[in-house]
Amino acid sequence: MPAEPRPVLALAGGVGGAKLALGLSRVLPPDDLVIMVNTGDDEEFHGLHVSPDLDTVMYTLSGLADPERGWGLSDETFQALKMLSAYGVPTWFNLGDRDMATHLRRTQLLREGQSLSNVTAELCGRLGIAHTVAPMTDDRVRTIVETSEGDLSFQDYFVRRRCEPQATAVRFEGAADAQPSPTFDEALDNARAIIFCPSNPFLSIDPILAVGDVRESVIRFEGPRVVVSPIVGGAAIRGPAAKMMRELGHPVSSLGVARKYVGLCDHFIIDNADASESTSIEALGMKAHVTNTIMNTTDDKETLARYVLRLLYEEDR
Amino acid sequence: MPAEPRPVLALAGGVGGAKLALGLSRVLPPDDLVIMVNTGDDEEFHGLHVSPDLDTVMYTLSGLADPERGWGLSDETFQALKMLSAYGVPTWFNLGDRDMATHLRRTQLLREGQSLSNVTAELCGRLGIAHTVAPMTDDRVRTIVETSEGDLSFQDYFVRRRCEPQATAVRFEGAADAQPSPTFDEALDNARAIIFCPSNPFLSIDPILAVGDVRESVIRFEGPRVVVSPIVGGAAIRGPAAKMMRELGHPVSSLGVARKYVGLCDHFIIDNADASESTSIEALGMKAHVTNTIMNTTDDKETLARYVLRLLYEEDR
Repeated sequence: MPAEPRPVLALAGGVGGAKLALGLSRVLPPDDLVIMVNTGDDEEFHGLHVSPDLDTVMYTLSGLADPERGWGLSDETFQALKMLSAYGVPTWFNLGDRDMATHLRRTQLLREGQSLSNVTAELCGRLGIAHTVAPMTDDRVRTIVETSEGDLSFQDYFVRRRCEPQATAVRFEGAADAQPSPTFDEALDNARAIIFCPSNPFLSIDPILAVGDVRESVIRFEGPRVVVSPIVGGAAIRGPAAKMMRELGHPVSSLGVARKYVGLCDHFIIDNADASESTSIEALGMKAHVTNTIMNTTDDKETLARYVLRLLYEEDR
Repeated sequence: MPAEPRPVLALAGGVGGAKLALGLSRVLPPDDLVIMVNTGDDEEFHGLHVSPDLDTVMYTLSGLADPERGWGLSDETFQALKMLSAYGVPTWFNLGDRDMATHLRRTQLLREGQSLSNVTAELCGRLGIAHTVAPMTDDRVRTIVETSEGDLSFQDYFVRRRCEPQATAVRFEGAADAQPSPTFDEALDNARAIIFCPSNPFLSIDPILAVGDVRESVIRFEGPRVVVSPIVGGAAIRGPAAKMMRELGHPVSSLGVARKYVGLCDHFIIDNADASESTSIEALGMKAHVTNTIMNTTDDKETLARYVLRLLYEEDR
């Protein structure tokens, strides 16, 4: 009897997470990788269910993503959105024409009663993705940013308001009562390792940990748990992580990120630029590793993926 | 107190109907015209409510229609549809990207509980249409073509099968229990005249007449009722009217059309090409009028509209 597969479980948000997920997918065979994606950012636009992080991962792994913009599809057009604007509808959330097809198809299948997990598997399969991509939950979880101007849904904060209001807290509506998706549940049981991709810890990873008992499962997890820091040289590679850390009272540094992962992480990977933080990070009870974490090219992504996986192999020995 | 407005009520299907509706809208002020549109062709695609005839009238009146193709919007792109095809969805029903926005917005408003009448008024208003355009009913009516290959929904018959199966009958599911839309109901009471635009009598006008008691209301209607024949020289200007008349056992001629309107029509307008049928048509108890009914240019549409309206003015005197 073949041994039960023991995949690597990668937790990812949007762009940064998708980059490492792509790297991992290029060095691990399909059965050895499960990519678990934040859905706290999901929102309905024009009656369609939009899952921005799932889409970013899906478009990145299928090679359809726009490499410059970081979101959406390459060579995208925006004709439908322009027409929606003529109908007087707010169109601050950019939806391309081909992207719209994803949301149309997802919404149609969800309305037919399929779970978001099944819909995600269907869409990814159609786009030729062999690795497993799944939502963190099939239940409804919504990331709410509490700000100086009141509560804002994630997209309202992130896209419409361009992260301008000062954040005072983040909460995940529905998370406590949500169940991890079946794939997540299984992977938390049988994965060989957990990799936290370099995604925003407050907006991309926290919602994943907030689902049901996921945080406790990660604390109890017996294999190695590896975090790749999304902060390099005191700044976020991309997005509002640095601004948000500052506003929420955390030092904007890899050390600041590492403090959030105490008890959840065995290996903390930081960029060469932050090598001086190693000692303080190790004082938190995790092993610090220094390498290049900036992923511009596909080679960069593969190289970082191999680096992460080497830690796991070493631990396995 | 001003007199109650007594508009002209125009009944229309798709392209042919929209042409005369456009002509009428260019010679009648907004309060003097109500355009009532067939919705038996409505169908759901990709989870969206598509109303092809309402859209054809709306796009024609707003100047956004593609003048060559006869359906959809000018300068249309089809990126979303191509992507839907990548997701393995049948895409035989052509939906452009800007067109998709119409269906998205309509579907969203319908799901919020608005009536198709209100949604139509909202969309038309946004596109700058001053005249009243309304669906024949806010209830669900579906045109089913009974064919040698079994029952086909209208779009299945018309678009996917390109009208190839032999039609044996047409029925309108839900029509008997449907209520005319509020605007239709009011217009049947207070309109000054009814104009049957040159639309397919079996597929565009019959469903309108099949709604609730509409046929009886038209029979009892006290003002002049004018039909513009969609058949010229033994052929349909466009679409499957001729083939269908043949298959259903009607002579393919304006006389054949006129027979369907006995009791519903006072003035029957035929093309110069069919002048020889005048006597036979008048024997049916309606007055025949001969003019050019082919509407290629906007001028043609206005000219035919003025011709129709002159009949009404003469009758009013």
